[in-house]
Amino acid sequence: MADMRLIVAGAGGRMGRALVRAIAETDGAVLAGALEAPESELIGKDVGVLAGLPGSGINVSADLWSLSANADGILDFTVPAATIANVAIAAERGLVHVIGTTGLSASDMAVIRSVTSRTAVVQSGNMSLGVNLLAALVKRMAQALDESFDIEVLEMHHRAKVDAPSGTALMLGQAAADGRKVDLNQRAARGRDGLTGAREAGDIGFASLRGGTVSGDHSVIFAGPYERITLSHHAEDRMIFAHGALKAAKWAFGKAPGLYSMSDVLGLDV
Amino acid sequence: MADMRLIVAGAGGRMGRALVRAIAETDGAVLAGALEAPESELIGKDVGVLAGLPGSGINVSADLWSLSANADGILDFTVPAATIANVAIAAERGLVHVIGTTGLSASDMAVIRSVTSRTAVVQSGNMSLGVNLLAALVKRMAQALDESFDIEVLEMHHRAKVDAPSGTALMLGQAAADGRKVDLNQRAARGRDGLTGAREAGDIGFASLRGGTVSGDHSVIFAGPYERITLSHHAEDRMIFAHGALKAAKWAFGKAPGLYSMSDVLGLDV
Amino acid sequence: MADMRLIVAGAGGRMGRALVRAIAETDGAVLAGALEAPESELIGKDVGVLAGLPGSGINVSADLWSLSANADGILDFTVPAATIANVAIAAERGLVHVIGTTGLSASDMAVIRSVTSRTAVVQSGNMSLGVNLLAALVKRMAQALDESFDIEVLEMHHRAKVDAPSGTALMLGQAAADGRKVDLNQRAARGRDGLTGAREAGDIGFASLRGGTVSGDHSVIFAGPYERITLSHHAEDRMIFAHGALKAAKWAFGKAPGLYSMSDVLGLDV
Amino acid sequence: MADMRLIVAGAGGRMGRALVRAIAETDGAVLAGALEAPESELIGKDVGVLAGLPGSGINVSADLWSLSANADGILDFTVPAATIANVAIAAERGLVHVIGTTGLSASDMAVIRSVTSRTAVVQSGNMSLGVNLLAALVKRMAQALDESFDIEVLEMHHRAKVDAPSGTALMLGQAAADGRKVDLNQRAARGRDGLTGAREAGDIGFASLRGGTVSGDHSVIFAGPYERITLSHHAEDRMIFAHGALKAAKWAFGKAPGLYSMSDVLGLDV
Repeated sequence: MADMRLIVAGAGGRMGRALVRAIAETDGAVLAGALEAPESELIGKDVGVLAGLPGSGINVSADLWSLSANADGILDFTVPAATIANVAIAAERGLVHVIGTTGLSASDMAVIRSVTSRTAVVQSGNMSLGVNLLAALVKRMAQALDESFDIEVLEMHHRAKVDAPSGTALMLGQAAADGRKVDLNQRAARGRDGLTGAREAGDIGFASLRGGTVSGDHSVIFAGPYERITLSHHAEDRMIFAHGALKAAKWAFGKAPGLYSMSDVLGLDV
Repeated sequence: MADMRLIVAGAGGRMGRALVRAIAETDGAVLAGALEAPESELIGKDVGVLAGLPGSGINVSADLWSLSANADGILDFTVPAATIANVAIAAERGLVHVIGTTGLSASDMAVIRSVTSRTAVVQSGNMSLGVNLLAALVKRMAQALDESFDIEVLEMHHRAKVDAPSGTALMLGQAAADGRKVDLNQRAARGRDGLTGAREAGDIGFASLRGGTVSGDHSVIFAGPYERITLSHHAEDRMIFAHGALKAAKWAFGKAPGLYSMSDVLGLDV
Repeated sequence: MADMRLIVAGAGGRMGRALVRAIAETDGAVLAGALEAPESELIGKDVGVLAGLPGSGINVSADLWSLSANADGILDFTVPAATIANVAIAAERGLVHVIGTTGLSASDMAVIRSVTSRTAVVQSGNMSLGVNLLAALVKRMAQALDESFDIEVLEMHHRAKVDAPSGTALMLGQAAADGRKVDLNQRAARGRDGLTGAREAGDIGFASLRGGTVSGDHSVIFAGPYERITLSHHAEDRMIFAHGALKAAKWAFGKAPGLYSMSDVLGLDV
Repeated sequence: MADMRLIVAGAGGRMGRALVRAIAETDGAVLAGALEAPESELIGKDVGVLAGLPGSGINVSADLWSLSANADGILDFTVPAATIANVAIAAERGLVHVIGTTGLSASDMAVIRSVTSRTAVVQSGNMSLGVNLLAALVKRMAQALDESFDIEVLEMHHRAKVDAPSGTALMLGQAAADGRKVDLNQRAARGRDGLTGAREAGDIGFASLRGGTVSGDHSVIFAGPYERITLSHHAEDRMIFAHGALKAAKWAFGKAPGLYSMSDVLGLDV
């Protein structure tokens, strides 16, 4: 099969540059275009150089319609307004659209769904293969084990992170709650400190560590009588999101139109 | 439902005593008898006291036929010859037979299978819930991930252990090989030392740590580009095997005759 | 050197039985007596059997004066009133007195100090070798590293524990604060949850996990720019306190009278 | 104090670019020059751009003598021949010389020592703060604990690494052997596989994991009776070597001439 030709949206941002590097590292994919907002100072620059690579011969452009004439897909980790603007063109041109943009509203999602009869879209709040797999395993474990196993979610992130627990920790806690068929809001035990009393059976605990430059570590612990199972994910850097997006794009290339998730990409029945 | 009445075979051994303690800690199960070989010095002793508990009023006996008149199941972590002797009586009496005995030969297994038309038997080389669950997860992960993720199995056991890797580590490696549909014997990378060269894609690596009094820790690592998923099991002590046996007994109580595995008990399609 | 003859105080309790087993496992030490309160139902019972061992020929007694005629030391993990009663006799007989009793008041400590001109006393709130060593290392690390390394203390304990963080976690945090010459009360960041804002430079964070039957795990993480150092202690069971007490007893045997800590025993300049 | 003005040698290489980025992230240090071999194609290019940063106004040069007229120190992770060529100029100009070059021969070291009466030189085979600290802690632990604690060294590196155990693992094993005053060559237990027999008391074990893109994880485990202490280092990326070099440079700025190690920089009496 010919290489998949990919456009990177938001190519001048930190995630966009990571996507450019990931394409360069991936067999079966080539960079076909680099998109930025029309007002960006980077328009016309070589996107390879921007990404810390040798010159690519591909300069940053604001014209998705032209770029997409010679492309098979678009990787889009931008902002909701930009993603929505890209959706219509991608559908018209039949591009695979991989959307990692966060903060999408319900109406944004409605727009995205409206085009999925014409092209394949993969959308997820977390494009990391590992985290999606971990969530699937956590759900299954929570189904298989009764309340004699206590579930705890531990995460560590860099010192600048302003919220706790992390969104991914909550996603993993939700997977555990789904597996147990309970409401996470009612069973989450967060911020333990002081005279807490004994742990309530059925609680799902959360603890957060902060420090240094940690990209993101997550563990879900199932602690039972005399044994413990721990399922962990360690992110080395943001490249994992880029690689997840590439895997999604290649998976969707040639698929029937529709809205797909990372679980579909991974073939897990979560 | 009335409590399940359980006989402990090999009640004077270390595992037998652990089973007696586990029954005392478990709702829905009561101790109904304690079995030892006729020549044991422990015949007639109170099995509760032997197990470090208050007196139980149940003395060690060598007569399974009599004991089983008032019992629903037998927990059997003994030696193959004793287990085979117990099989016929358990079947005749309709007892659930939970067999954790290791070293069973093919002909021993044939004898066991011959009675499973009459009663429910649960047999496994490792009765720990956690390890069986871990193996199931490892197989699924190995199915979901391609060779861009390297699989490594790490284990640590106490200083007296004489073989490496542990049998459980090999079981986990086998689960990974099954998931990938490869032959473990051809892909196992064991005992790395010296100028090994780069890792071969598709290998399943093993590493063993030895020291102290460690009951048994196992981790399976899936190391991919810029991220790692680690699935770990930590055994605190041999009580996990006892608790696994109790879970198996209660699960099998009332089930149709047949030969069951821990995967059946756990409801996993491993 | 002849074996050190040791009396176990509180021999019928869970810690006392652990001490009896630890003596049986230790070269150079022998059990010389077993002490309980006069009203105990265990007076006269064989303490070996109580501890799950073969008969020892040593029965539980309430008379420390008689027992100590043929002993070199006493291991005392009891309650403050019992320990204080033992102090005078131990000093009079010249016994090494190893005190692991917790909850000692300032006046209890004054009584203990009053006898240390006559015999060697080793007293510590945590007799585990490992935890004491860990605290020493944490203090040194905190001295060596500036605030570009963030310090986090993580602990996990069984589901029945009613307070968080654990006393040992706070002890480790105190060691870090001592190393940095800061006031822990002013720098402790506990119970992170919600919109916490970025981590304050110089904070010492705490997080607590609860579940299962975990005896006690503690980690102190030093997270700096692009690297992390983690110092961890894993307790398998209460036997570590018993073994720590035996090490202290043997170390103090023949030492000059005085009050010693586990840091003295370990030879660390904490 | 004025900012320390630093020259980066080998500025076009991967480590050189990391050093340029590290200077940009460090208070109290500024980039004063970028050195490459005269035949390099990068001569004259802006070193900021090469490092993935905004333009710095500093172009790559081959003339250390000129550059050093306006500098306080030089960071040198190059090859032995280049380092030796830099030594004389750095000494003549009174620059702090931080040498992270590996593979230095005994005669190279003799040349380096010959200049240390004139300027401050910091030389180490591993500039990571964390690993140097870890080695110091390992040595102390090995001194404090007797052979009832088994020592194991575990490391994990990326799939392309061709040797096992890693050089840093061997360095940590050497620190343990030094603490115990034994010969590592006689006590190293490497590549465990098959029927190994029980662990020999006093051995120092090694195990190696390989996979993915792991920058380098190292753990030293002290496994004793019923407890374990683990000292671990996790490297996120090569920036830790760059940051270690910067810490060394700032520490040595204003110090008396002499040859210093990372232990001196860290103030550890290893």
